[in-house]
Amino acid sequence: MKLVTFTKNDQDFVGTVIDNKVINLNHLLADPSLTMMDLVEHGLGYIKKIEDKLADNDQEFAMNLDEVVLKAPLPNPGKVVCVGLNYMDHCREQNVEPPKAPLIFSKWSSCVIGNGENVILPSESTQVDYEAELGVVIGKEGKNIAEDNVFDHIFGYVIVNDISARDVQFADGQWARGKSYDTFAPCGPYLVTADEISDPQNLSIRCTVNGNVLQDSNTAEMIFTIKEVIAYLSKGFTFESGDLLSTGTPHGVGVFRDPQVFLNDGDEVIVEIEGLGILRNKCARETEGSDVK
Amino acid sequence: MKLVTFTKNDQDFVGTVIDNKVINLNHLLADPSLTMMDLVEHGLGYIKKIEDKLADNDQEFAMNLDEVVLKAPLPNPGKVVCVGLNYMDHCREQNVEPPKAPLIFSKWSSCVIGNGENVILPSESTQVDYEAELGVVIGKEGKNIAEDNVFDHIFGYVIVNDISARDVQFADGQWARGKSYDTFAPCGPYLVTADEISDPQNLSIRCTVNGNVLQDSNTAEMIFTIKEVIAYLSKGFTFESGDLLSTGTPHGVGVFRDPQVFLNDGDEVIVEIEGLGILRNKCARETEGSDVK
Repeated sequence: MKLVTFTKNDQDFVGTVIDNKVINLNHLLADPSLTMMDLVEHGLGYIKKIEDKLADNDQEFAMNLDEVVLKAPLPNPGKVVCVGLNYMDHCREQNVEPPKAPLIFSKWSSCVIGNGENVILPSESTQVDYEAELGVVIGKEGKNIAEDNVFDHIFGYVIVNDISARDVQFADGQWARGKSYDTFAPCGPYLVTADEISDPQNLSIRCTVNGNVLQDSNTAEMIFTIKEVIAYLSKGFTFESGDLLSTGTPHGVGVFRDPQVFLNDGDEVIVEIEGLGILRNKCARETEGSDVK
Repeated sequence: MKLVTFTKNDQDFVGTVIDNKVINLNHLLADPSLTMMDLVEHGLGYIKKIEDKLADNDQEFAMNLDEVVLKAPLPNPGKVVCVGLNYMDHCREQNVEPPKAPLIFSKWSSCVIGNGENVILPSESTQVDYEAELGVVIGKEGKNIAEDNVFDHIFGYVIVNDISARDVQFADGQWARGKSYDTFAPCGPYLVTADEISDPQNLSIRCTVNGNVLQDSNTAEMIFTIKEVIAYLSKGFTFESGDLLSTGTPHGVGVFRDPQVFLNDGDEVIVEIEGLGILRNKCARETEGSDVK
């Protein structure tokens, strides 16, 4: 099921997308307060029940997709755990040894935005870069998860664009700040439930900027698979329902190209992953005071 | 006001501590669902109203502090933003230049525990260390906050012990994993509202392990003050209500002592900050399968 969070008439809803129609799940289930986080916590068994109910649905709750505004499917993930240097080609392009174990860093959940929202290029950086990544949404909480059980803990998948201010990231040494500017985690357009993705380690993954293909790979190229990453990290900390794991990016990022490519005002970045849809975001340069809150 | 989250008869409550008594605010306010996050979001104006109501209170809702179990005052902060290398002496003890701007890293909010809970020493590390820190809880959301306005955005203060697995932290290079094992962020015992702390940049801060004083400094020694850190970081990302900023640790941490001091099974770590109480936690070595969920 392709799940979305969307806005219509200034109200937030959750829905599912079928054939370019979005079906309002708050209306279908007569549950006005239901959020994506609730669906994630309820798990795939509940999704199956919704599917059964949809089979009887007379399209009463369906709208055209262009009548609504999509938001990030899971607007407030718990923690956002990111894996660095997890594609062999991405290590080669920067002349570093592949890590011996998954290397992690964080993004704040407050930098998540949805399909169609603008990536704001901060005035502090002139080197904002894209990174196409497969995101994994945790369903069932777990600690010390065995590799064989990892898929029991996965609710679904989502495209993530791990936007990075390279000058800040490398100057700081610790990556947290350069990776966590507001708007630096576009996610979407859908959260696709795990039952729809038969093999998450065999999905084509591409990134284009203004129509130029700059990353083009396959999740089969990951150094550490999803199973390995989750088993390894969960030895240390608990994965909670609604956490987002972003599994690293393939080669072709802007900072290691010759000549380098960075995002500019007006650029459109598109990330596509097989089965997960197309995530489109335009870039807009921050203007002074534009986002004082 | 000294705010606490506590458990009694397996139920969670929020309360305020006055003279070794805890007053149940859910009962006082006749609001069973009120949480600490709600109080933080309501802000200091609401706290003032509670104080007025307390003045008329006949102790009906008061219990002895030892009748309840304290939890972390804010059990699920939004993001946990940590400042590294923010005391001059702490830079000197590790022979590094003080940073030119605040250096940040993250801990997951899932590693927060309260006063009296055990720090679990993970089997992956033999070098678990303590770090006494002043924590700042954000009240009012803000982006691009001017230094002069920073205190309008602060709800209160809490002691944080930034527990760190040094071997993991330094081997990874990125600090996120070594800093984010479950239980690695003891906080408490109270969240003290900002009106009670007249100058957060002049508080004594101490850490003892098994009675030995290992850190003994003052928040006046910070390289970047709270005002400077929040103004600087909020140029990049939004501070949200319920975020926790941990402002760095003074000299005396275990890894840079000669001989080194690391935490062992049964050790008791106590962090004290003037006006914020005493945070006590014992350490327990992880046993295999002890925390499989």
